[in-house]
Amino acid sequence: MTAVSKRKKNKATGKPQAFRRHRATTTVYPLHAMASLPRTYRLIVSCPDRLGIVAAVSSFLAQHGGWIIEASQHADALAGWFFMRYEILAGSLTCEVAQLQQEFEPIARDFQMVWKLTDSAQPQRVVLLASRETHCLADLLHRWRSDELFCVIPCVISNHQGLRDFVEWHGIPFHWAPVKSADRTAAFGRIHQLLHEYQADTVVLARYMQILPPSLCDAYAGRIINIHHSFLPSFVGAKPYHQAYDRGVKLIGATCHYVTATLDAGPIIEQDVIRVSHRHSLEEIVRLGKDVEKTVLARGLRYHLEDRVLIHGNKTVILE
Amino acid sequence: MTAVSKRKKNKATGKPQAFRRHRATTTVYPLHAMASLPRTYRLIVSCPDRLGIVAAVSSFLAQHGGWIIEASQHADALAGWFFMRYEILAGSLTCEVAQLQQEFEPIARDFQMVWKLTDSAQPQRVVLLASRETHCLADLLHRWRSDELFCVIPCVISNHQGLRDFVEWHGIPFHWAPVKSADRTAAFGRIHQLLHEYQADTVVLARYMQILPPSLCDAYAGRIINIHHSFLPSFVGAKPYHQAYDRGVKLIGATCHYVTATLDAGPIIEQDVIRVSHRHSLEEIVRLGKDVEKTVLARGLRYHLEDRVLIHGNKTVILE
Amino acid sequence: MTAVSKRKKNKATGKPQAFRRHRATTTVYPLHAMASLPRTYRLIVSCPDRLGIVAAVSSFLAQHGGWIIEASQHADALAGWFFMRYEILAGSLTCEVAQLQQEFEPIARDFQMVWKLTDSAQPQRVVLLASRETHCLADLLHRWRSDELFCVIPCVISNHQGLRDFVEWHGIPFHWAPVKSADRTAAFGRIHQLLHEYQADTVVLARYMQILPPSLCDAYAGRIINIHHSFLPSFVGAKPYHQAYDRGVKLIGATCHYVTATLDAGPIIEQDVIRVSHRHSLEEIVRLGKDVEKTVLARGLRYHLEDRVLIHGNKTVILE
Amino acid sequence: MTAVSKRKKNKATGKPQAFRRHRATTTVYPLHAMASLPRTYRLIVSCPDRLGIVAAVSSFLAQHGGWIIEASQHADALAGWFFMRYEILAGSLTCEVAQLQQEFEPIARDFQMVWKLTDSAQPQRVVLLASRETHCLADLLHRWRSDELFCVIPCVISNHQGLRDFVEWHGIPFHWAPVKSADRTAAFGRIHQLLHEYQADTVVLARYMQILPPSLCDAYAGRIINIHHSFLPSFVGAKPYHQAYDRGVKLIGATCHYVTATLDAGPIIEQDVIRVSHRHSLEEIVRLGKDVEKTVLARGLRYHLEDRVLIHGNKTVILE
Repeated sequence: MTAVSKRKKNKATGKPQAFRRHRATTTVYPLHAMASLPRTYRLIVSCPDRLGIVAAVSSFLAQHGGWIIEASQHADALAGWFFMRYEILAGSLTCEVAQLQQEFEPIARDFQMVWKLTDSAQPQRVVLLASRETHCLADLLHRWRSDELFCVIPCVISNHQGLRDFVEWHGIPFHWAPVKSADRTAAFGRIHQLLHEYQADTVVLARYMQILPPSLCDAYAGRIINIHHSFLPSFVGAKPYHQAYDRGVKLIGATCHYVTATLDAGPIIEQDVIRVSHRHSLEEIVRLGKDVEKTVLARGLRYHLEDRVLIHGNKTVILE
Repeated sequence: MTAVSKRKKNKATGKPQAFRRHRATTTVYPLHAMASLPRTYRLIVSCPDRLGIVAAVSSFLAQHGGWIIEASQHADALAGWFFMRYEILAGSLTCEVAQLQQEFEPIARDFQMVWKLTDSAQPQRVVLLASRETHCLADLLHRWRSDELFCVIPCVISNHQGLRDFVEWHGIPFHWAPVKSADRTAAFGRIHQLLHEYQADTVVLARYMQILPPSLCDAYAGRIINIHHSFLPSFVGAKPYHQAYDRGVKLIGATCHYVTATLDAGPIIEQDVIRVSHRHSLEEIVRLGKDVEKTVLARGLRYHLEDRVLIHGNKTVILE
Repeated sequence: MTAVSKRKKNKATGKPQAFRRHRATTTVYPLHAMASLPRTYRLIVSCPDRLGIVAAVSSFLAQHGGWIIEASQHADALAGWFFMRYEILAGSLTCEVAQLQQEFEPIARDFQMVWKLTDSAQPQRVVLLASRETHCLADLLHRWRSDELFCVIPCVISNHQGLRDFVEWHGIPFHWAPVKSADRTAAFGRIHQLLHEYQADTVVLARYMQILPPSLCDAYAGRIINIHHSFLPSFVGAKPYHQAYDRGVKLIGATCHYVTATLDAGPIIEQDVIRVSHRHSLEEIVRLGKDVEKTVLARGLRYHLEDRVLIHGNKTVILE
Repeated sequence: MTAVSKRKKNKATGKPQAFRRHRATTTVYPLHAMASLPRTYRLIVSCPDRLGIVAAVSSFLAQHGGWIIEASQHADALAGWFFMRYEILAGSLTCEVAQLQQEFEPIARDFQMVWKLTDSAQPQRVVLLASRETHCLADLLHRWRSDELFCVIPCVISNHQGLRDFVEWHGIPFHWAPVKSADRTAAFGRIHQLLHEYQADTVVLARYMQILPPSLCDAYAGRIINIHHSFLPSFVGAKPYHQAYDRGVKLIGATCHYVTATLDAGPIIEQDVIRVSHRHSLEEIVRLGKDVEKTVLARGLRYHLEDRVLIHGNKTVILE
């Protein structure tokens, strides 16, 4: 096990106390990221569109006392598919959540739903992979330690040693997993095992400059999030800023997407751009792009952690 | 009656045929703005928040065969208020709309709802008021005649003559209603009467540079839309671009809002900004601002015409 | 010659008087678009970068009394190339402009300059080509007639008849030039001839849905401006909005660029984007995109008309 | 003296080596922030506008071999004032910089210039003041330690203890300077003394929630940079996000400005906004705003550190 800072840590999220300024001195588990937000259950559903879905679900919830504090639906007319996300006040339910789930089964079956019910108080375990660039990692760690991003970060894995100090200062284990071209299989076998050991729910490639093997992409399908430093589908692959500079575009961008076996072609979660001009050198374009990358990645990851992203085919529905 | 172009006009919207390129040669009433969009009923509801609203409404609709193609809700936890907008496929209903409305009454009463059911095929009658500036008016008329904005424009009223030719070319009656400071009461009496004669549902101040009397604001409360050429609440009142220039702001904006008796203080529907710098003279700021003004006004008006804007206190909920 | 409105027209720009509300009753030639702007000469230079260029040029101008109201330079360190644009108050010069040009020759030769001196009071002649879509054309014509865009529009050419009425209302000749796949050579020969007859300085493809033959691209190299309805280099070619919709991008864009013989690959002048989501149907994406297209085209054309765009290789330098 | 991390530090910027991944193992003074950027002198001039300024300055520089890699000018026609910024390759000069300055004096006197010549290799000393909020501070420290922001941060001063650990991890002294309402004079006397001891060139209020006394504002006029969490001049003073929420604006913003004795009224350096809607609670508005605040502050500070900001009256000219 890697050496880890010895400062006192919070049990739920493994976060050092130093930064936990919003917390009361005695916190009870489960701890919620935003002190002001109540605990909720999130019901996420997708199914073929047909009459009566909302009526069936909302009536079911009302019968169990479920107070809906946020509801979003989307009907994709072309695809004939329906998506919904209900955020239900945990304290309002008149039965245990296990019973709720059990009683929901017949409805789900009837409408051929793919569904899940998640607990806002159960933080996902998010393993971060990084290479040399620090901006995305530093940004995510700051959001995490200032309670802006609600998740557990069980460890950080990198193919370089440079980030160790900074990561460990946060009380997070750091794993050095070098990837040599001669031995990529072993290297990614080791990484896969680490993800397994740390029980990763989600993997974030925070400017991790290695292409994952298809087996890893498949094992964590819909759960590996990458930030690509271009406005996809422009400038796929290596050195997108160089490509953008050479083409003379007037805006550069970044794309947060799910990783699939096809490079930079997975479902897009979030994108944004920033204006550049002939005055900007390649170095300045790289610098300006970093601000977009970190914001877009943080936004995309937040959607994912709040169960707002539904994948359908190669596209996403973001239920804000 | 003002002279009007004699070109052949469409009966539903009074629009000359010249521009109606998306239309089939024989159109049947009711005509929908976007040929590809089906006719819908829009159920707009606001009420105190409580358990079971969605269940009650969606079950009611399902019982009458109502296929919901778009649904948006919002619960304002602070205000304890609930807002919803359902867009229901007209052809899916198993009863007449009048019966639907009648049978909905008990539910509405039970939940203390303020509600309405509108027909997407019934265009609102929108009277435009303008002064000398042409950009907002030209933009709205183009959107109208190219079927982007679905409404009837029964007339345009202006305190100047300059826009007459352009308005009449569209086959729309133009009324000159000069406003002299000595006789504002009579002038606005005349305008009020015109609004009445033309059965205006909505009034748009497309850079109309006169302050409306409180009586008119009250008579059309929640139905008069203004575009103010600043990012409110900055730069209320006259010459906002001059104020912005003097303050040295780095972005200028525009605000689309409902008109109330208090100047530039009504509920905001939409806002946007554009970047400026020391390089821009006041004239260039005015020019750049125009693009924001017309876009923001068109977006705000579209929300209003699609029954997406719910006013609560002095704020709006936009159910996209 | 096509039929043209008989309203009284301004001699310099051929613009009907109706809309010329900013003009004094007696205007003297040359008329400037913005009444408040003084007449200037614009000196545009590009050359290999070396010591003393600014000193040589600015000293030369100072010796001739040239008052510089705007100066922009750019040194491209990678390319080793220098670009400059000086805007000189016409009235400040102590000699005739012809003499100024003649005396500048030795300096230009010494520094191997490509250069030109243009007169802000001499409007370029801009021929617009359009197909069925009206939004870009209507936007440009409005900017033109409200004195926002300073140019002469000697005619509009279209492969469809739908725009005739609207164009002719502006007092601008309209030419119908259908392009049939069997006879593209003859069709474009006719268009080329029209451009010649009308002495076009610049050609604007305002959503003109035909690919120009290489001969035409070459004849007007650096003078044909297109608006492509995607954020290039994404979605080259036909139906870019369909491509964007299918890829599930979260922003759509438009690109204003010079036309070269390679489709959608010429030097980019201006780009912008707008946010979309899963909620937007293809029709709505098309509608939202129109606002970006017309703004981006107008901005790019303005840069071009103000001699702010310098092409170097396949990129542009925009000297604002 | 506060306890400071003992890791090996770089002499020029006092930065710990851990993060200095772009640096060669042996660096020679003066160290430049961006390894790829050459050392330059920046000549910053403002003076009454008149004929021949550019000619005089550029000729003078050319005579001394000065290779200009970046030049920006601005003539404010209304104010009759001229501003310029030349970036000159240090290695190109044929004389010592002291001699250059001495020989420039007569020109400066002749044109009544306010001017300075700064050395890109001489980092400014920037003292950061913060309260409880961490996002701006963490963002600036990351940019500093990853060589994106070229300056020395001699210390951080805060009226709270919470940031101590994080600051000291960077090897930067941390000073706790509590401000009690009963004894503000003494507290700010202490802070003023710290600024003096640490030889602060620039002071950054990184969400420092105290109003500085006029004496301090005057002593560091044009050198204290604040980030205000609203789009000024909207929402001056306390709790701007609450004010924005209550007014129902559709965009929230942040403003980076120089501090003067009048609250939130100093010259604006940079601003930006982000879209919000009725869906966002006050807490979410605060969270979204943070991303704008830190970006806007970093951008404004960068302009300042690169000597791009010229103050004229209560406005700024940003010579990019």
